[in-house]
Amino acid sequence: MRFKDLRESMISCSDYVQQRMNELLPENFSDSKIVEAMRYSALSGGKRIRPFLVMAIANIFNFPANKSLNCATAIEFVHVYSLIHDDLPAMDDDDFRRGKLSNHKKFDEATAILAGDALLTLAFELLTNPDTHGNAEIRCELIKTLSSSAGYKGMVGGQMIDIENIDKKISQEQIINLHSLKTGELFMASAECGAILGGADKKERFALRQYAHDLGLAFQIKDDILDHIENQVGKNEINEMSHKKPKENASIVDLIGVEKAEQKLKILNEQAKDHLKIFKERVNILYDLVDLLGNRSN
Amino acid sequence: MRFKDLRESMISCSDYVQQRMNELLPENFSDSKIVEAMRYSALSGGKRIRPFLVMAIANIFNFPANKSLNCATAIEFVHVYSLIHDDLPAMDDDDFRRGKLSNHKKFDEATAILAGDALLTLAFELLTNPDTHGNAEIRCELIKTLSSSAGYKGMVGGQMIDIENIDKKISQEQIINLHSLKTGELFMASAECGAILGGADKKERFALRQYAHDLGLAFQIKDDILDHIENQVGKNEINEMSHKKPKENASIVDLIGVEKAEQKLKILNEQAKDHLKIFKERVNILYDLVDLLGNRSN
Repeated sequence: MRFKDLRESMISCSDYVQQRMNELLPENFSDSKIVEAMRYSALSGGKRIRPFLVMAIANIFNFPANKSLNCATAIEFVHVYSLIHDDLPAMDDDDFRRGKLSNHKKFDEATAILAGDALLTLAFELLTNPDTHGNAEIRCELIKTLSSSAGYKGMVGGQMIDIENIDKKISQEQIINLHSLKTGELFMASAECGAILGGADKKERFALRQYAHDLGLAFQIKDDILDHIENQVGKNEINEMSHKKPKENASIVDLIGVEKAEQKLKILNEQAKDHLKIFKERVNILYDLVDLLGNRSN
Repeated sequence: MRFKDLRESMISCSDYVQQRMNELLPENFSDSKIVEAMRYSALSGGKRIRPFLVMAIANIFNFPANKSLNCATAIEFVHVYSLIHDDLPAMDDDDFRRGKLSNHKKFDEATAILAGDALLTLAFELLTNPDTHGNAEIRCELIKTLSSSAGYKGMVGGQMIDIENIDKKISQEQIINLHSLKTGELFMASAECGAILGGADKKERFALRQYAHDLGLAFQIKDDILDHIENQVGKNEINEMSHKKPKENASIVDLIGVEKAEQKLKILNEQAKDHLKIFKERVNILYDLVDLLGNRSN
């Protein structure tokens, strides 16, 4: 039952984010190609885990879901921008994303670069909106949290390390560091923004950041495991369509094998839950999220 | 004498910005390629007109120059990011910038894309710093002004239109609209941020935005005139080095000729000065800036 609740609330959060994005990116904005390209990637679904983290965590502190929607949407814009840029030929060179053509294949490289730039910029604009939070100090804190996590010390720094090590063998420690930056930082920012909105104290904020860090790392390892299994079964339809040898990003599974990666995943999941212990009963949904993401099949 | 003052204060403002950038992008940050690439473009000089606008305008209202430096630097980061992305092969495909290899030629495309992303992100992070302004409401207003000018309704929107019209013939009205977005918006944001820092009233803020808009348009037309003259004299050393037919961005000179472009420039310069009339004596430096930029030879 609890699990059913989590799934339901995730779907409902995803619907809200989709709707807010749709409002923020007006379909007929002066027949603009840039907005069309932004909409194409932003509205193409996805798990919406980061906005869910914002909204679920804010809600733990009784901050209403509708009031955390702007912030949740801003963080998802940053995630979407990072995917568009990651897919570019100069980066991972992926022709497909979520079963659809990637942004630069649907449009072109210039448009994809600009659509990413515009989504990143829009994220910060959205956070300045008084609807995001009535207190400007809080809005500034959200912007600071997101920008420092998304920048060269965080997500972009991780992507740089990833790109530098394509087709290279790096150590387990280096892979963990890379994933901490590339995936962990935005998970942490999501949790922290939820905590900021909810008015969490310092200790709670720290615990939620740690939780999100481990959840993010576990998420990435699970991704690597699923990719590995998929590749063993044989290239899927989409890979056949692209006729391209995929670039080999650093994968923990390639380094230590599925079994040890599964063990690592289990440890991280336990660790993530441990960070929640200070909260007693009111964070069930965050425990359930660990299990849901750990047991997912795609 | 007044002219000498302007030049001196521009040099001094440029030195301050250079120094602040140098502090903000630590040279030995974990041997990071991304920071090296950010430094390469950010610290490579340039006219620093946008930060000068911020600092000079804030100073009109007696807001001290050292206190407007963070905001000025943030706006210059946004300008530098836009140049890095504009130079990419998918965009204008320029191998050189300010007499040096462009970022993607010095490093590679992936690094250039990420360095641009990181500079944009850092700009917003910097604006959240309480040193930028003690009042969070003001910091949010600066972030809102910059993000809305830099995004899809502003600078990025202009770049999109520019890219869509490479090697095409468009109308004078379309060229003006494109330059208003691509160049004018960031000039306007600079002026407005200076006005916000200085505590300008609504009327003053509006006048300064209009001034900066016309100054930005005039700046772009002057650029087009200088490019045209340079091309007539013959390709310069750098063009010979790149062995590439340059992409034809929309240029007002190609459409209406040098003479009419010079007339348009003159009108815009007069218009820019007209917007300053409400200020009486205290904005001499802004009048001088119009003349300096209008009479420049590079």
